[in-house]
Formats: sequence, structure tokens, C-alpha cells
Amino acid sequence: MGVFFSDKGATYKPVKDVNLGPNSNELYLPANVRAPRAAGFLVKIFVWFLESKFLGPLLMHFLKRDNLIHKLITDAEIKEPPIFVPSHLVGNLNEEEVMAVDSHSSVPSRVQNAVDCLPSPAKSLSNGIMPSSVHHWTVMDYWRAYSSGAITPIMEMQVAENFIAAVIESSKTPLQMSFFINFSPKDILQQAEDSTLRYEKGESISVLDGVPIAVKDEIDCLPYPTTGGTKWLHRLRPCKTDACCVTRLRSCGAILVGKTNMHELGAGTSGINPHYGTPRNPYDRRRITGGSSSGSAAVVAAGLCPIALGVDGGGSVRMPAALCGVVGLKPTFGRIPHEGVLPLNWTVGMVGILAGTIEDAFIAYAAISGEAAPSYHKTAHESSKVFYPLLKSANISGVRLAKYGKWFNDCNEEIKIICSRALDRLLENYCLKVVEVTIPEIEAMRLAHYLTIGTECITSFSTHLKNLDYAELGWDVRAALSVYGAFSGEEYIKAQKIRNRQMQFHNRIFAEADVIVSPMTGVTAYPILDDSHQTGELDYVNGAALVQYSIAGNFLGLPAISVPVGYDKLGLPIGLQLIGRPWCEATLIHIAYALQALYVEEYRRPEVHYDLMKKRTAKGS
Amino acid sequence: MGVFFSDKGATYKPVKDVNLGPNSNELYLPANVRAPRAAGFLVKIFVWFLESKFLGPLLMHFLKRDNLIHKLITDAEIKEPPIFVPSHLVGNLNEEEVMAVDSHSSVPSRVQNAVDCLPSPAKSLSNGIMPSSVHHWTVMDYWRAYSSGAITPIMEMQVAENFIAAVIESSKTPLQMSFFINFSPKDILQQAEDSTLRYEKGESISVLDGVPIAVKDEIDCLPYPTTGGTKWLHRLRPCKTDACCVTRLRSCGAILVGKTNMHELGAGTSGINPHYGTPRNPYDRRRITGGSSSGSAAVVAAGLCPIALGVDGGGSVRMPAALCGVVGLKPTFGRIPHEGVLPLNWTVGMVGILAGTIEDAFIAYAAISGEAAPSYHKTAHESSKVFYPLLKSANISGVRLAKYGKWFNDCNEEIKIICSRALDRLLENYCLKVVEVTIPEIEAMRLAHYLTIGTECITSFSTHLKNLDYAELGWDVRAALSVYGAFSGEEYIKAQKIRNRQMQFHNRIFAEADVIVSPMTGVTAYPILDDSHQTGELDYVNGAALVQYSIAGNFLGLPAISVPVGYDKLGLPIGLQLIGRPWCEATLIHIAYALQALYVEEYRRPEVHYDLMKKRTAKGS
Repeated sequence: MGVFFSDKGATYKPVKDVNLGPNSNELYLPANVRAPRAAGFLVKIFVWFLESKFLGPLLMHFLKRDNLIHKLITDAEIKEPPIFVPSHLVGNLNEEEVMAVDSHSSVPSRVQNAVDCLPSPAKSLSNGIMPSSVHHWTVMDYWRAYSSGAITPIMEMQVAENFIAAVIESSKTPLQMSFFINFSPKDILQQAEDSTLRYEKGESISVLDGVPIAVKDEIDCLPYPTTGGTKWLHRLRPCKTDACCVTRLRSCGAILVGKTNMHELGAGTSGINPHYGTPRNPYDRRRITGGSSSGSAAVVAAGLCPIALGVDGGGSVRMPAALCGVVGLKPTFGRIPHEGVLPLNWTVGMVGILAGTIEDAFIAYAAISGEAAPSYHKTAHESSKVFYPLLKSANISGVRLAKYGKWFNDCNEEIKIICSRALDRLLENYCLKVVEVTIPEIEAMRLAHYLTIGTECITSFSTHLKNLDYAELGWDVRAALSVYGAFSGEEYIKAQKIRNRQMQFHNRIFAEADVIVSPMTGVTAYPILDDSHQTGELDYVNGAALVQYSIAGNFLGLPAISVPVGYDKLGLPIGLQLIGRPWCEATLIHIAYALQALYVEEYRRPEVHYDLMKKRTAKGS
Repeated sequence: MGVFFSDKGATYKPVKDVNLGPNSNELYLPANVRAPRAAGFLVKIFVWFLESKFLGPLLMHFLKRDNLIHKLITDAEIKEPPIFVPSHLVGNLNEEEVMAVDSHSSVPSRVQNAVDCLPSPAKSLSNGIMPSSVHHWTVMDYWRAYSSGAITPIMEMQVAENFIAAVIESSKTPLQMSFFINFSPKDILQQAEDSTLRYEKGESISVLDGVPIAVKDEIDCLPYPTTGGTKWLHRLRPCKTDACCVTRLRSCGAILVGKTNMHELGAGTSGINPHYGTPRNPYDRRRITGGSSSGSAAVVAAGLCPIALGVDGGGSVRMPAALCGVVGLKPTFGRIPHEGVLPLNWTVGMVGILAGTIEDAFIAYAAISGEAAPSYHKTAHESSKVFYPLLKSANISGVRLAKYGKWFNDCNEEIKIICSRALDRLLENYCLKVVEVTIPEIEAMRLAHYLTIGTECITSFSTHLKNLDYAELGWDVRAALSVYGAFSGEEYIKAQKIRNRQMQFHNRIFAEADVIVSPMTGVTAYPILDDSHQTGELDYVNGAALVQYSIAGNFLGLPAISVPVGYDKLGLPIGLQLIGRPWCEATLIHIAYALQALYVEEYRRPEVHYDLMKKRTAKGS
């Protein structure tokens, strides 16, 4: 075993002595969360204790102890030096079936390169009337419709107007979907008009021209403030310019349709927001979307946008994608410029993409990825080449999928069955191999990541908090911030030592396999309880079940993607996750595309769904 | 001004808005240390308070507040993202008068390359009888003597025997120099015998063959334990193999003569060690050597070794070098492999070189620098070329020296005069330029570095400390560890934000100048008071004066060198510091060499000094 426990804390064995094979005697420790769900009055009492000068530290001590933070991190003996930032060198990528693209070429030309990698329209399911992926109108659907003149971005009863009407309707009783924190019909119509003019003149910029794209309210996008899901942050940090990723989408002609709802400060996984209403899952509006990119997942699921941007610091793109039945892609750390994104953390968060289909995630990826202006982790990514998967070739044979059985199966029964079946179908249909592995110390990694993202979050906001009336904060976020502020410098560095171990473990696994496969979440969308609307809720047990498969993507900076692969008995979506080698998004997208091909005909239309290509009278579900 | 103060803490302006010119209105804030000197009974009381569960945190609060840590760091608003590791890309080095050397070539051949850069022996001051630098026998002196057969490493009354006799004598009354923590006459004689045999066979390996080199007891070197200046660390961390830098020296035939004394855990700057005796300054044995590489500085000054290795985490090589009148070189972060060095910290410490002359520092640098086995900051240094300065050419014309007057002059009057004169002499003798600059926020950097090195140190040892009888620790180190453990994760990250600001400031300065010049210390060697021998002492005021010019070298990973440039009225040595661009050691060494040429004839022999080339009867001062 890699870890020895004593009364004083864990002692970690040298990485090289840990067996990562299928018969390793490494203990699989399921998330060991000891905290009751709290909402309403209970959460207020809890916060009152936590914030108390004398009782707070005592309560914190027991919370940390009971949740194994002391044993696995604080008191642990970890020989490895800390690694603070999950930067990866561009090595020999060894990807096949790819197109090499110059990351310095213009954004529209990169988008066109991505389109060139797609199967030809003839092979597409789309006939110009039905959306190509059964219920998602894709970017290419929009483009074909606009290009043919069958429809325009602006004309009455067409896309932009449909969009505005749908958002307004969805935000009222009975739906109260709370998709957006801010959206401006005037701004949308102006962009749509500009796009229409371009199409009329035959000067459309790219396939994204006129395509509605939503942006999580953690990313700067004019003319909107960036609230971060709070009632106050935009007062202290005015939004002055578009984020780099937004600039790139705009340069392709995309219509930026507003700022989606999110968990306040990204400090939770349910997406419940007491200030702007709780986004509801389009598959069952009594249930959560998952978070923190809650609104972005919901708008894509509901058919309002083929693409939305999110930010993924601890599964915050992939989790809600899985719960809402859409695709969630988090690229390699450093792949997408972080300029103009709220600094909620520095070493785990990344802009990610939510999309209705893999093709659309790929097109968005082509638009927003690539070298930024020199940034502070400029050592990470030196190659100016980026590789796009040739999706027109379905050849993914020879790919080796790593599976850690104990971890894979540590989820609810239906997820286990559906995800295992998805893996079987992949193997049956393509010439792939499964490599059984052991990934050690997963729970230690979850805690180390929690400690890291929490400490970075409080560092980012502590000076703001001093000037703040705490009544402006949600109760669950107040609890989170109390915990975040309680970590010592020593604990922070020890968490980075765990990061080093895991980077080494994963390097070793990626020597044997190309991709790690797992469920995306341990639970499906759970109900929004009445007592949580006003106060938010603390549900660390469900929270841990939601993030348990996400952490490597963030803490180790690995690219990862969630693909819808079915539904539980209640009809709630389930996602399968693929985690790739650093910089190997092409392989990931290729496998995800092959997987989607097996499921696309089975995808179900959600309860709340809009069809923007239809006449306005036909809106709603 | 870059910083605005309010009751709540500092607010730092964006880096780009800070004026670094000579007429900047940036405030120069001298080190604002508020803590009385404590030793003996007082330090015990102080530690008792600090370690007390209830009073400790209160006392800590006041200590941090009074020393501006709250204002400048904890409560400060700093917009820049953190930079955790001072890694630097190898850019366009723009160094002139250099020889490009393949860092993958063998160690002896790299040493020979360095020798090839030196002026020919004809130009040397050495006549084979007198040491070439007045009182330091240099590597080339040893080599010429050995090669001519005039002397051998082993024969009676010659080097190794002289060395052993000198160490034994120096450790007794009346001298009690406490140079070494461990040295083994048997091991030394064996190495000397091997070396002598090689010379006899005409098979000497390099100019380092047979040259005595001492190693700070923070670096693994067989057959000795690595105590780190403690009474316990070697029990918990046995030394199993040579450190990488030691292996390299051994591969050149150098005689590794033992482990030099040091400040316990490197946690202080005086060098006072209650466990192994306090190393004494060879220029005045009632005074400190400076630390933490105290013994290494002292043995070089005393003529026992032309070269000794130290480790520099906060000036720990350069400071004692300055106080003991020898050369101290700390190369760029990542330049010397860290394998086999105690992990007292991960982001500021580096192996450094203490030597009697610049030439010898250069030869040692050639031997121990260069790419190691892949390490965790392998992104830092990609070029396999390393540049050596062509010292045979004295051409350093055109070099621009940056000087920040307020900082340069913030030292005792004699240091100011001597260092200003050294700068003037450089300008008079070579065609150099001085660029007046402002380096902002130097005190914030000192505190951020303190917080960083402290937090990393406690992280490294906290699990050991739990198993330790605190009576085994020195009192001053107990105080230091209490402070180190009191920093929060948030404070640690904010310190890294300060690091980012300073890296940007220094990048901008290095766009205008090649080297920054400053005194090495703010005070010369101060007296060892009687009450400090048993308990160690806390003298934060003198400590701050010692480190105030050292920090950029460590916190920003810049190469820096200290060169002796004179003496105060008491005859105590004074050093001038040159700080270079990342990876530009060649420029640094070249200027230092030119500077040394102006002073070499004025160098004084210390009060305690040995001449290993003389017959044994002539030993001692």
C-alpha cells in the first residue's frame, strides 16, 4: 500500500514503489464525508458557529478531522516536493488521425479547419429541417439554414427573436428556469442584425456567424457586468472588456446572448443560487442542473444555444453537462487563455465548453483555444501547433482505455450499469483495448484539490470580503468561505505534494493507456428541496458524489470530456467521462465522437426544450 | 506610488503603472523590524509564550502586525496572479565574450572548458610558491603544485595532513572555530592517497584533482550523516548517497573534506549554533561569520579550502561570504541540481559556491552546474548549452549597471562608502554605464520571501517535529518554527502574488540594465554575545540588515554574486553584490572578475589562517 496510517497521520510510500496494476493492494477509500445536509435555518446556525471567533476554530478542527483532512494531508508525511501549477510540456503527442493547425492563424480560419475535419454534410443526419442530432440544432445546422437563406438570425419569428421570447417565457411562472443572470434583447438583436447583413452580402465570417452562444457569468462579456453569481462582485470589479475567449467567439460572428446563472463564486456543485434563482434541470425542473456552470448546461440542454462557455475548477463544466445530458469539455490547463475570467483560483480552473454535440464542442474548442498573449504560465505550452481530430475518419482503433474498477463502480447502481454498458458498446464497435489499472489515493487527491481551490478562492476575495456586508452573501457560500480561510500555508503546500504524487501516478498510467474512462458523476440530478431556495444548501455528501470523478482534470490539468450515454429510470441523463493525456484533446474528441455516434439516436428531448428554428408560435415544449 | 495604504491594508497598483525610473515617487520603506534582541533566559520566555496554545496566537498577531505583515501582505489587495516557482525560460541570452559549452559533456571536460576561459598561467600572479591571490591558494595553484610534483595531496607534511592538523587545532581552545560538524581524517587521507596515485601515474582527472572542498551539512556527502545543523534530523533522514553536486565534484577528483557547520535548519542568519559550537569569523573570532552557510564561508576564508559548497535560500551563501571576505555565488534557480540537498524549502533555495577567488567559484560552477536528471521544474531550463565567460578577455565594456540609490545607501556608513567606491572604481577602470533605477516594494518582497521560506520549512519538517523532543531544538529555531507555522494558506499565496510583481519589476529593470549592483549586507560581522552560545539568539534587526540585499536572488531565482571590496575600520570584510539576468551567470562572473582584479592586491589575510602548502610546523596564523 502507498499509504500507512498511524495515529499521527498517513505516511506515503515513494511513488515508484506504488503498484498501479490491476492487482495492486492499494486501498480504495470512498469519499468519507461526515457532515449532515443543512439548509434553511440549520445552515444559518452552522454559519453562525463557523464565523464565531472562538467556537469557529474548534468546529473547524472537528470538521477537518472527521473528513480525514488531518490524517491524509495536514499530519501526513509526504516526501515528494510540491508541484504548484499543473503545467505540462508539449512532448511527443503521438496522436493519430489529426490535422496540424497553426495556433497563430486567425480564429475564423481555425474554425474552418475544424469544420474541414468533420464528415461531409452529405453524411450528416441533418436534412435542413430536422436538427442533426435529434434534438440539438448544431452549429452546422444553423450555418446551412442561414447560408441557404431559409432562415436568418434576425427576421421576425426567427432565431434571435425566438431566443428572446423563449428566455422571457422560461424565466416566468410556471417554468422559472433561471437560465440567465443578465441578457439584453437589444444587444442580441443588434448582433443578429449585423450577422444577417453579413449573410445577405455573402460575407459571413465563419460557421459560427449568427450562432447564439451563452457565457457563464464568471467570464467577462460586454455589455454585461460579471457577477460571479453574487450580488456584489461586479460593484468591486467592473467588467471593462471582453474575455479573450469571448473576443475570439465574437471575431467569428457568434451572437453572445447573455450571462448564464451559476453557483455563487463557483463555491458549490448544486448550482443553487439564492440571489438569481436556481437554474432547473431541463429534464426535470424540480431537480438541480449541477454546477457551478449551471445555467450554461441548462441553456444548451434546453436547445437555446448549441454552445455555452463555462469554467471548470472542480468539474464545474463536466458535472452539469452530465446531469443535463449535454457534452462538457475541459481542455488541458493553459490551453484556453484565462484573461478576462474571474480569478476564483489560479491553478485548477479553466474555461470549458458545454455543447449539444461533440462536433459543436470541437468547433468551439477550435475557436477559443490556442496560445494567448504571453501569460504567467507561458512555460506550459510552447508548440505553436495544435492538433484537430479528423472526425471524418472513424478510425480510433488501437486506443487503450484505462479503467480502475473500484473507482468506476463507486457510484449509484444505475450509473454503474449505464456507464459499463457504454464502455462495452465502445469495445464492441471499435477496435479498442481496456487496460485495468489502479489509481491510488483518489480521496487524498479530492481533499487536496478542495484545500487548494478553497485557499485560492479565499485569497482572491478576502480583501473584498472585508468591505462587504455579509448579508449580501449566500449562507452556503459563507460556510464555504469560513472553511476556505481555515487552511494553513503548510496544508496548502502539502496539498501540492499530493499533486506531485498524482501527476506521477497519472504519467505512469498514460504510459500504458491513452485515455482514462470513468462515469462523470456518482449521482444523477437530485431534487431541489424547498428549504434551499433562500439560503442555499450544504450537502457535502452529494457534493462529493458529484465531483468524485472530476478532480484529475483540474488538479492535474488533464483534458477531459463528458459524453451523454443514457438515462436512469427517472429519465435523468448520465455522462461517461474520458480523461486524456496533456495536450491530447484530439484523441479525446475523436473517441467521444465515436461514442456519441453509438448514442445519438437514443438521445431524448428534455421536458423543457425550445426550437429556435421554428416559428415563434411553436416554441416551448 | 505603487502602494496605497489604508487602515485595512495596502492596495498595490498594477505593475505597468509603477514608475521604475530614477525620479519615481515610489516610497523606499526600510526594513521595519520591531522585535528586541533576545537570547539566554529572554529567548526561553519568548518561546514559552509563542508555543503556548492560547497566548501564542495572540503574540503572533501582534508580531505580524507590528512588522507590517498584515498591512503589506495579509490584508493587501494584489491583483496579479501568484507565481509559485521562479522558473525562467532560457531566452536570447545576449551575453558577449563567452564560450558555449554543452551541458551534457562530462564534468571534467566542463571544468577544463572553464580553465580554458582563464588567463594563461603566465599572466597569473602565482609563482608556484606564493598563492596567486595573495592569501588564497587557488585551484590552479594546487594543480600546478601537484602537477609539478613539488607537493602531493597525501605525503607527510603536505596538503591532506596539513588540513587535518589545522582542523583539529582550530577546533580546540583557544580558537574554537567550530568549522565542521563532521570530518573524517581517515576518509580524507584515503581520497588524498587516491589522488596522489593518479598524479603519480600522470592520470589526474581535472584541475580539481586533490583539491580540498568542504560541503555544508545541508548537502548529502558520504560517509557523513546530513544533520542540517540539528541534533536529530540525520536520525530521521539517513544520508544514503552523495548529492548530485557532490558526485560531480568527486568525479573531478576533488577531496571532500567534511561537513561544515551551519545555522540549525538554515533558520537564521547569524550562523550561531548551540549544538555544534558557533563558527567564528576568521577576521575576528569574537564575531559571527553570518549564515546559514557559516562554516563553509569560514573554512574558505581561513585558507582550509579554496572552495566550499553552501545552500542559499535567503542569502545564506552570499551573506557569510561577504562577512568573511570571500566570494559567494548563487546561480539561477534550477541551474544546479537540487537532488540530495535537504528539502528545507522548494522555491527559494539553491546550492551556491563559496570560494577564495572568482576563478575558483567559476571552476566549481563549471563542475556542478548543468542539467540534472529530469526534475520537477524541468520546464525551467531547456537549452543544453551553458555559457562560460572568457575571463582571458577583460572586455566588459558596455555593461550597464542598475543602481537604486536609496536602497544602495540603506546600510551602515562604512559599507556605503566602501561599496560606492567599488562602483566608482569599476566605472573608472572599465567602460561601464550606471543606470539609476527605482526598485519598488523591497520591504514587501522581504516579508513575502520570509513568509514563503518559513512556510516551506515548517511543511518540510512538521511531521518530524511531532516525534521530536523539543529540547533537542535550539531556542531560536523553536521561535522561528512557531512563526513559520502561523502563516495561513491565503498569506502564502499572497506572498506569491508579490513574487509575480517583483518578477515583472525586475524584468523591466533588466530591459534597461545588465546587472543590478548593491552592497551585499547592511552590516558587517557583529559580535557573538556570551548569552547566545547556549540558546542561540533572536536578533531580527541585525537579521533584516543582513538579508536586505539578498532577497531578489532567492525569491526571483536570479543569479547573484558577492565580491570582497574592502574592510571597515575594524578590518571586517565588506562585499559588493551583482545580481544578473536569469541564466546570465557568465556576465556576472565576468564583471566580478574584473572587479576582483581591482582589489586582489588589497585583500588582507585574516587573523585565523592556514597555509596548507607549507610545512606543518608553519601552520596557524
